[in-house]
Amino acid sequence: MKADFINPFLESILDVLSTMAQIDAKPGRPIIKGDDVACGDVTGIIGMAGEKTKGSLAVSFTAPAICDIANRMLGEDVSEINETVTDLVGEITNMVTGGAKRILGERGYDFGMATPVVVSGKGHVITHKTKGPRILLPFSTEAGEFFVEICFD
Amino acid sequence: MKADFINPFLESILDVLSTMAQIDAKPGRPIIKGDDVACGDVTGIIGMAGEKTKGSLAVSFTAPAICDIANRMLGEDVSEINETVTDLVGEITNMVTGGAKRILGERGYDFGMATPVVVSGKGHVITHKTKGPRILLPFSTEAGEFFVEICFD
Repeated sequence: MKADFINPFLESILDVLSTMAQIDAKPGRPIIKGDDVACGDVTGIIGMAGEKTKGSLAVSFTAPAICDIANRMLGEDVSEINETVTDLVGEITNMVTGGAKRILGERGYDFGMATPVVVSGKGHVITHKTKGPRILLPFSTEAGEFFVEICFD
Repeated sequence: MKADFINPFLESILDVLSTMAQIDAKPGRPIIKGDDVACGDVTGIIGMAGEKTKGSLAVSFTAPAICDIANRMLGEDVSEINETVTDLVGEITNMVTGGAKRILGERGYDFGMATPVVVSGKGHVITHKTKGPRILLPFSTEAGEFFVEICFD
């Protein structure tokens, strides 16, 4: 998987968070995941399916990070992972994938987006079952960490 | 969402389990999900994206149910949710969706399948974020329960 495929997702999530929540997230070093890694406390997952490519995206937030994002985006005092938060995680997952889809579509990689699914539960583990590499992008914000995982077959 | 859309998934999972694991799973009454429901201990999720429709499927197993299925399908003595089990859940999710895709394709509902994602972690909760209804199909086997959730926009 080329950086060409990863960068649109990276740009897209930074753009969504700075525009919608005025959060300046710092990307860490992308890593190719070997083993499963315990992720955040709430994760948005979306499938992508096109003629040339298929894959899946997961955006996984720790509770402090997503509560801060929710407070900033919604102006509500959110302190736990409730339906407001899972709705927001679904929206963010959709927006990030939609942003990357536009960029990749201009480069000839068209794909359709499935509907997002949100998983909550402390310490859940996400495994992308694919033959292709799985890339983990770690991010930090003032309030906490989140992760974007991308895989394409 | 019509029964036409649900039945292919129901037929497909019964077929996969009876063919691959000689398990005769008993379907319960389908319900339209309102609130989030705590699901099984390991869940396979796959996105579906087509021109006319998009959606997502989750197949969620309790630990006793999936360990029994793994023992029967693989001939291995599996007693906990390990990588063998999450691989198997990814495979089953793929096979069930692939079977339903063939049936729905013959009826003019073509969609592409994303790559499956498997979530493990006791008591995780899955929420399909969609405007359409979410249908939960409960199943029981001699060893335990599992659930299939389908949503289409």
